[in-house]
Formats: sequence, structure tokens, C-alpha cells
Amino acid sequence: MAEDTKGITVKKADDMPEWYAQVCLKSEVADYAPVKGCMVIRPRGYALWQAIVDRFNEMLAEDGVQNAYFPMFIPESFFKREAEHAEGFAPEVAWIANKDGARERLAIRPTSETIMYDSYRRWIRSWRDLPLKINQWCNIVRWEVQDVKLFLRSREFLWQEGHCVYETAEERDKETLHYLERYRQIAEDLLAVPVLLGRKTESEKFAGADRTYTIESLMPDGKALQMGTSHDLSQGFAKAFGIEFQGRDEQPSLPFQNSWGISTRLLGALILTHGDDKGLVIPPRMAPNKVVVVPIIFEKHKAAVIAAAEKVGAELKAFNPIIDTRDEYTSGWKFNEYELKGVPLRIEVGPKDLEQERVVIVRRDTGEKEFVPRKELVKRVAALLEDMQEGLLAAARKRIADATVTVNDFAAFEKAIKEKKMVFTSHCGDADCEAKIKERTAATSRCIPLDEKRATPAKGATCVLCGEPATYALYFARSY
Amino acid sequence: MAEDTKGITVKKADDMPEWYAQVCLKSEVADYAPVKGCMVIRPRGYALWQAIVDRFNEMLAEDGVQNAYFPMFIPESFFKREAEHAEGFAPEVAWIANKDGARERLAIRPTSETIMYDSYRRWIRSWRDLPLKINQWCNIVRWEVQDVKLFLRSREFLWQEGHCVYETAEERDKETLHYLERYRQIAEDLLAVPVLLGRKTESEKFAGADRTYTIESLMPDGKALQMGTSHDLSQGFAKAFGIEFQGRDEQPSLPFQNSWGISTRLLGALILTHGDDKGLVIPPRMAPNKVVVVPIIFEKHKAAVIAAAEKVGAELKAFNPIIDTRDEYTSGWKFNEYELKGVPLRIEVGPKDLEQERVVIVRRDTGEKEFVPRKELVKRVAALLEDMQEGLLAAARKRIADATVTVNDFAAFEKAIKEKKMVFTSHCGDADCEAKIKERTAATSRCIPLDEKRATPAKGATCVLCGEPATYALYFARSY
Repeated sequence: MAEDTKGITVKKADDMPEWYAQVCLKSEVADYAPVKGCMVIRPRGYALWQAIVDRFNEMLAEDGVQNAYFPMFIPESFFKREAEHAEGFAPEVAWIANKDGARERLAIRPTSETIMYDSYRRWIRSWRDLPLKINQWCNIVRWEVQDVKLFLRSREFLWQEGHCVYETAEERDKETLHYLERYRQIAEDLLAVPVLLGRKTESEKFAGADRTYTIESLMPDGKALQMGTSHDLSQGFAKAFGIEFQGRDEQPSLPFQNSWGISTRLLGALILTHGDDKGLVIPPRMAPNKVVVVPIIFEKHKAAVIAAAEKVGAELKAFNPIIDTRDEYTSGWKFNEYELKGVPLRIEVGPKDLEQERVVIVRRDTGEKEFVPRKELVKRVAALLEDMQEGLLAAARKRIADATVTVNDFAAFEKAIKEKKMVFTSHCGDADCEAKIKERTAATSRCIPLDEKRATPAKGATCVLCGEPATYALYFARSY
Repeated sequence: MAEDTKGITVKKADDMPEWYAQVCLKSEVADYAPVKGCMVIRPRGYALWQAIVDRFNEMLAEDGVQNAYFPMFIPESFFKREAEHAEGFAPEVAWIANKDGARERLAIRPTSETIMYDSYRRWIRSWRDLPLKINQWCNIVRWEVQDVKLFLRSREFLWQEGHCVYETAEERDKETLHYLERYRQIAEDLLAVPVLLGRKTESEKFAGADRTYTIESLMPDGKALQMGTSHDLSQGFAKAFGIEFQGRDEQPSLPFQNSWGISTRLLGALILTHGDDKGLVIPPRMAPNKVVVVPIIFEKHKAAVIAAAEKVGAELKAFNPIIDTRDEYTSGWKFNEYELKGVPLRIEVGPKDLEQERVVIVRRDTGEKEFVPRKELVKRVAALLEDMQEGLLAAARKRIADATVTVNDFAAFEKAIKEKKMVFTSHCGDADCEAKIKERTAATSRCIPLDEKRATPAKGATCVLCGEPATYALYFARSY
């Protein structure tokens, strides 16, 4: 039967890559594109992205950041101006084939620092023009792998990039961390995906940054996922692009900048974190339809249960319910369908429920079923959605805590990584030593905790690999 | 003084291209980019685009159209599948320089029919999957001219493209016109830019369409601007991409499609239509800040007028007011500034106004100034904004009516075009004859009115150029 082939045919625990691809495809959030390394974001997936966009735009408005749009094309000479930046991105840049005898090649933006800062140079004159806080929602191209991992890795993706300019380093430093905190709010409060907040090591920081901050989560397959970054940029950009302002002392001054971004990759984190063997599980705050109402149709009571389902739906209007009164599908088929698609709550209305003035509510995450008196419907739905949102976050938090181990020696490090754990350990801070760890375990440093206490190694602690005195404590894991 | 150099230095009537560029740059809605043919949409311009996006997204939700995102890259072979389409777009396509030994070139989307319909083929199986109604907001690249006209013509721009698939031609035809009506609502009800609704001639229709409908407006410089199009696509696309569905009769059937789009070009129409010698004029429904409150500061009454201005602002919160209490600028400087930037209403609060329990309100479009009793503030602001919105539309409508003439002979046609008018006339319908008109006058056919009565030539009417019997009546003008 068609109904059977629609479901997920592999268990999450048995083969996560195959499970993940099936969930994305069968729940219709994404599809492969006929272009290598690219993906299609289908309406169900785009609605999830829109929920992030809408919430983040509210935050931007509160923070006084304005949206704008800059060209996708970046002249090659711009790229070369900030040396580290150019070197870091060079391998991933796609270029436009030469048109009308242009003197130089045009890159398709892998990030927009260089094209934006050229405008900033012209717009910024005085300290009165600062801070300048601009954000852009756009598509980004990084010519990486050929094999797309839906949402997680593709040659084109959607993101936002914030680019701010400040008078003082203090103001900049404070705001760089503020936007990281915004990303934590998006990840944890909206997507129910718990994250670690930290700083990248020198080896892992953004090309052209003095410091890169990151939010990192651990996926159920033991791989870490970088979910958002916020960078204190070096003044190399301001120098390279001639951004200068007249200070309060009337002297020409070099400003301080940051940049920060989150992308459609967040949706991969949501799916990997919450999905189960039945399919997608959407956290209530992210769900475009928080409820589906399914009348249990028997010929005899058909009109009555359909009318009741519609009434229930009308009462739940604030939760944007789907009311599925279609006749050509069985109730069982519908249950599977909305479980696959991750609708948070299912409400069943059958003849017996009518009789007893109640409805049946089933939670997507736990599968728990309860009878709810008709009069308590709206209140109970609101409470269950709130419970589910919190429950998903708590469950993921517990899973990550269970999968994180603190180790002091390299044998334990290797064992933990093999067991798909995230490792918390001490390190000397030497880039070569860090590279050796990657070589030997495929694990990379994820972040040095923002919390200074946790970032400070115990007295006398040594590097997990080389045994030299430890500089900081940090997380390692294999990663996406 | 800096204040003087900030204003527009040329009159709209004297040199419209220079005036237009100055308004865009000085009101800070847009800027030139360092990449040939490209532009930067600054925050003030992007907020206007966002107003269109928000309103149109509401309409899409009402109409059951869902947003999605498809790759920007289109394999060359896809382009070639629908012959007319490929030929029409070939000269404008930008290509990605060959990477990793790909077999074929990748185009950057000049429009997304081909890449989307490849997915549609996989998604559509049965009549139950129809209608399929998907929209995409994205950037578009058409390698046209080198000289950018801000918003009006650039190699990259932002747009939405709707792409729907239907079971029947009737349903398709009806909806193609419905989306054209939506565009009329956006243009007239939101932007206050009056438009003609019509059908393009065979020569002017979209490459790959059976019929192209358009909304056209006439700018104050006598040039027509195509502001949105909606196409009945030929079944050539369905054939070329193998889109087929099992019909209600269980037979394989070819579906019917349309596509439709509006772009950031609309902002050019807004600026050209409403702007004046003082700068930008934003129709109230489009304005992010509908009101600016300026306290008239004299040292003696400073605290009182600032407090009063803030109170006025608080009461007008629904209109998202700017409250400009800055000390370092004079009131006169502020008046110029907000006139330049097009804020619909200015509210002045001075010591005398405080005394008399009133405010002064000045309309941006007419410059009319009135004293409004403090108690009537909110009501009067709402009424004035509504008046201004209607007034702008009415004024533009009158200007266009005055600049449109009906002619029956070619001498009158040539004279009218020279006088920067739009011409309504009769034509034989022959493409070569239409091409000759363009050659001789630089005017192109704009549209055959949707209204059948107006589109039908008078009995015995002949073609304005060749004298053959007329097939239809239509508009001609020079255009952007």
C-alpha cells in the first residue's frame, strides 16, 4: 500500500544519515536539486526558515539593526584586500565567467564583508554616524563538497549576516557577545536545540577575525554542529577599505567592527535533534500549524463528527490548526501523515468523544494520549504546547549531557570520540598540537567555554595530547 | 553650509534623470555599487521593499500560495529545453566559470521556470496534487546594460516569482488574471501608483508564454514603466520538463501553468511618481515612519517642548513616529531633512503651540500646514494620512490622464510621442508593422487593455501606421 512506502523505513539509531535524508524528503521540507551540491527548500521547510527570520527580525528591530541589500558580486580585487580573509575563502569561491571584457573576475559572495565595507567607507564620516548596524538576508555560495547534506552542507544556502561598526572596542566587544546571546535565544527558546556558547581557537576562527564566538550543539550521531558565529573583526578590514571616522576629539580614527551570521543549517539541527522513527518533530513555537484536528469518521456519525471537528478547529484558530475532514483517506493514514510531518498535537474527535463531550489529544513528541473535557480544550492545548516545547529542550539537554565526557588523557579522549561522545579536556593552545588531534581522531576543537571558570584549566593541568601546561579547557568532537 | 549641499540641486521638471539619482542617493534609499551595473539597497530603501513583501505575503497566504526556495544555479541543458524561453533569455544570462570539471555550464537564474519545473515533475503525480502554487522571493541576474538606473534597471535585482500548476486551462486563465489584479492592488492601493491593466502583443510577451498580462504606468518623464507581469505559459514547459498528472479520468494529462512577478523596480515607480523638488515623498501606507515630531526648541522653553513632543510621539505610537529632540540641529535643518526623506507628516510643537493646546501639522505632499487642537491629534493624523494616500493616487491619475492622447494617424502619433505622451491608438496586429513604429519613434507597444470594449477598435478603424484594418486598440509609449 502507498501508505506504507511513505513512512520512514529505517530507524534513527540504526542509520542516521539515511534516516535524516528520508525525514527531509518524506516530510517534504527539502529535496535534492538537479544541480550538484544544491538543494530545494520546499514550502514546509521554508515555513520553518520563515519562523526564524520573523523572530530574528523582531530582535534586530529591538537592537536597532536595519536590513539592507548589497550586490551578490564581489570584484576580485576587493577580496584580496584583507589578506587572511582572502586566503581563507579562496578555495570555496565561485566566479562569474568573464563578460563584456571586464578587467577583473567577479566572485559570488561567500560572505559580504568586503562588498559592504566599501559602501561603509562612503557612508561613515563622523562619530555621529556610529554605530552603523546593518543586516542582510541573502543567499550565499561556497563551492565546497559535491555531496549535499540537506540544510547542513550545500553549495548555496540562505542566511543573515550582520555587519556593525562602532566607535570603541568596548562597545563592539559587548555587542559581539550580545548577538551570540541572540543566537542562543533562537536556538534554545525557538528551536529547542541546546547549545554551548564559546570562543573558537585560533585555528578554527573566521578568516579575518580577531576572535570568533560560536554556538555549538551536539547531534544524536555524536557530531557537533556549529549553529551560528559572531566575530570581532580585525581592524585589517577598516584599514583595507579605508573606513575612518572623525572622532569626538576631531581626529581621524579607525572604527571597530563585528559580523555575525546564522543560516538554514539551523533547520538541520532541528530535524536531527528532535526527529524520531516516525519522522519530523517540530517544536511548537516553530510549527506553522501547531495542531491538526482529525474527525474519526464512521458513516453513521459522519456529519456530526465533521461539524464537531470544524468547531474544535475554529476554537483553536490561534494555533493555526489543520482540520482534515477528507474522506478519501483513513484516520490511520492521516495519523501517520501528520506524525511524519511533525505537527505538535493531534486532536481526534470521534462519535464516542462527542457523546462524552471530550476530545482526544496526542502529543507528537511523547506519543502520550489524553482525554480532555471539551470545555478545557483551549487551555489544555496551550499548556501541552508549552510542555512539549520545554520537554524537547530538556530531552535534548539530557542527551547532550550524557554524551559529553571530561577526559584528562589521550587514550580516554580517543575512546570517547570513537564512542561518538563530545569531549571536554585541557589543551596547550598550540595550533600544531591541535592539528595532530584532528589527524589522529578526526575530532576538531569546538569551543572554549564563554564561562571563564570552565575555560580555565585546573591548577597544574596539562595538555591532553602533548602534556605541556594547559592554556585553556575546551570541547572537542567530530563535526558536520 | 552642509545643510544646503544636502538638498536636491536640480528641479524634477528640468532634468529628471539627474533629479531621480539625487533623490535616491540623498534620501539614502539606494547607492551605486563598485560592481558595474549593480546597486546597493540601503536600509531606507529596503524598508520600502519590506512593506511590499509583507503586504504581498499576506495576499499569498489568502490565495493559498506557499513560499519556497530553489537553487540559483541552472544547468545549461535545462535552459535549452523550452526553445523560445532559451532564445529569449540567452543574451542576458551570466554563467559560472567552470569548476571541478563539470560537464555543462551553470547559469545564474534570470528567472526560475526551468529549475522549478524539474522539481514539479517529481512532485506532481495526480490531480490530487493540483493546484500546486509556489512563490519564491530571491535575487535575479540579467546581464543587460552597464549603466545602472537605481531600482529601474540593474544586473541584479530582488523579486518574487510565482509558479502555479493547474488541472484545467480555465482555472489557470482565471488565476493568471487574479495575480495581475493583486499587482494592481499593490501598485495602486499600497504605492499609490496608478496602472493600466492589459495584455502584451506577441512581440512583447514573455519568452515561453502564450499570453503575457502586464500592469503599466506612465512616469512623469513620459516613459512607461512595466511594473509587473503575469504569464499564461505555453504547455511547452510541461512537455519539456515531463510534468504530467493522472487526471480524474485516470488518464495521463498535461497540466496548465502560469508564472508572475514583481520586483524592486516598483520602488523606482514610487520615487518617480511622487517625488518632488524637495526629495522623496512616501505614500503613508508604505512609510515605515508615518510621522515625525519636531519640538521647536528655544532655550527658555526647551524642557517643556521636548516633554510635549515626546508625549505627542507616545500618543502617535501606532504611526511609528520619529521624535527628533536632537539639540545639535536647527528646526529648519530637521524640516529639510525629513522632507528630503519623504516622511508623510511633520508635527511641530513650539512654545506657542503648548500655550494654545495645539500642534502644527504639515503634509509632505501638498506642504499644507494646519493648526490642530491637541485633543484631536490622533484622529486628525489618521485622517490626513488617509487623505494623503488618496491624494497622491488621484494626482498621479490626473497627470497620466493628461499625458495620454488618442490618435488615429501617424503624424499625430509621432507628435504625441515627441511631446512625451502615451498614445492610445489602433493597430493591425502585425509584428513587422509594430517593429517599424518602434524604429521610427522609439515607442513600443505597452498593452492592449484588459477591458474588451476598449481593446476593440471602432468599426472600420485602421492601423495607425500601415492603414490595414485594425485588430485591436492599444497603448504605445517610450519606456524604461
